[in-house]
Amino acid sequence: MRQRNIKHAPDVLAQHPTLVCMNPDTTFHAPSFFPQSGPLHLEIGSGKGAFLAGMAHRFPHINFLGMERFDSILIRCLEKTLALALPNLRFIKMDARNLTDVFAPGQIDTIYLNFSDPWHKKRHAKRRLTHTRFLSRYKEVLSPKGELIFKTDNRPLFEFSLLEMHRFGMTLDEICLDLHAQEPEDNIRTEYEEKWSARGSTIYRLKGCFRK
Amino acid sequence: MRQRNIKHAPDVLAQHPTLVCMNPDTTFHAPSFFPQSGPLHLEIGSGKGAFLAGMAHRFPHINFLGMERFDSILIRCLEKTLALALPNLRFIKMDARNLTDVFAPGQIDTIYLNFSDPWHKKRHAKRRLTHTRFLSRYKEVLSPKGELIFKTDNRPLFEFSLLEMHRFGMTLDEICLDLHAQEPEDNIRTEYEEKWSARGSTIYRLKGCFRK
Repeated sequence: MRQRNIKHAPDVLAQHPTLVCMNPDTTFHAPSFFPQSGPLHLEIGSGKGAFLAGMAHRFPHINFLGMERFDSILIRCLEKTLALALPNLRFIKMDARNLTDVFAPGQIDTIYLNFSDPWHKKRHAKRRLTHTRFLSRYKEVLSPKGELIFKTDNRPLFEFSLLEMHRFGMTLDEICLDLHAQEPEDNIRTEYEEKWSARGSTIYRLKGCFRK
Repeated sequence: MRQRNIKHAPDVLAQHPTLVCMNPDTTFHAPSFFPQSGPLHLEIGSGKGAFLAGMAHRFPHINFLGMERFDSILIRCLEKTLALALPNLRFIKMDARNLTDVFAPGQIDTIYLNFSDPWHKKRHAKRRLTHTRFLSRYKEVLSPKGELIFKTDNRPLFEFSLLEMHRFGMTLDEICLDLHAQEPEDNIRTEYEEKWSARGSTIYRLKGCFRK
């Protein structure tokens, strides 16, 4: 997501240490952030947080954690969290490359990737969040029955991701090449999805898991 | 393909036993039909034969065999064969279910499925040419490095086929979700493809092989 720099963002974020976990250097301790125990679902790259807020509202028994790298984006998520006051919606500031340092093996039950940066240049393929180097991290932190759910409107990224996951040995459970044609009830739209679907973009989705 | 009944079709077909192999009850003997030896590529469901004629013209060292079940469709293929006089273009009348009775293990180098009937009702899924029961036949008759190349404009069929091939354990080499966006040089369009692409349909393609 493109971002404008928001100067006061770091200060505001620091005032809410129970809502946003900043740059953790030890294993993420869910009970410190979520009042109720429950399955842990992680969105990598939360943007403005609409998807996760919608999910947290619909599934109160699941704890939703949104990951972002930038303060100026996280501040929007924090604003949503404060406005909605949902006990099962929290955020974390960190880089997805450090996933296995911050989460214990099997700690996460579902990972969402929504409209991740396509990094369209071939030499940047390693940065795509569906590249093998990330899939191996997801495999480690996901529980044995954990699921990866991936949405995008970027066709080349979806083609790349399908092949990458297939080759990595994932078990693909759902492949949907036009999510809004017959929109499944379980779909919560992101802001980006809403905007680009209205402009005619096709939305792709897949669900898969890792054999362990 | 929808077909009109053509009364004289069986008689005309019977007059060209070296161009069209009719209802074979023994193993297909390639040298009886193709003057030159070469790799054998099979299209299952050839329609009016434009795809295979284009391929035969472009790749003279490969022998192309088109499979159809109906005389009224085969007659159009025969007309093309006679008009073009390509020594590497032949047809066979048979049902794909009998594939392993007619072809020896490993006899075929490439199988093409172009715009196969989607059999959209769930209870007819078994009739789809990418259903497991057909995939297992393709695996048997394809050579160890043999490839399956599948094109369709039917999204639900493509989604079904992707999952079916993935679950069957095929190795997918190419997944293309909009073939005409940057049309690869190796693509020969079928009549159906030409018509529906002009009307705005998206064309999907995948290539895969069977680990042996």
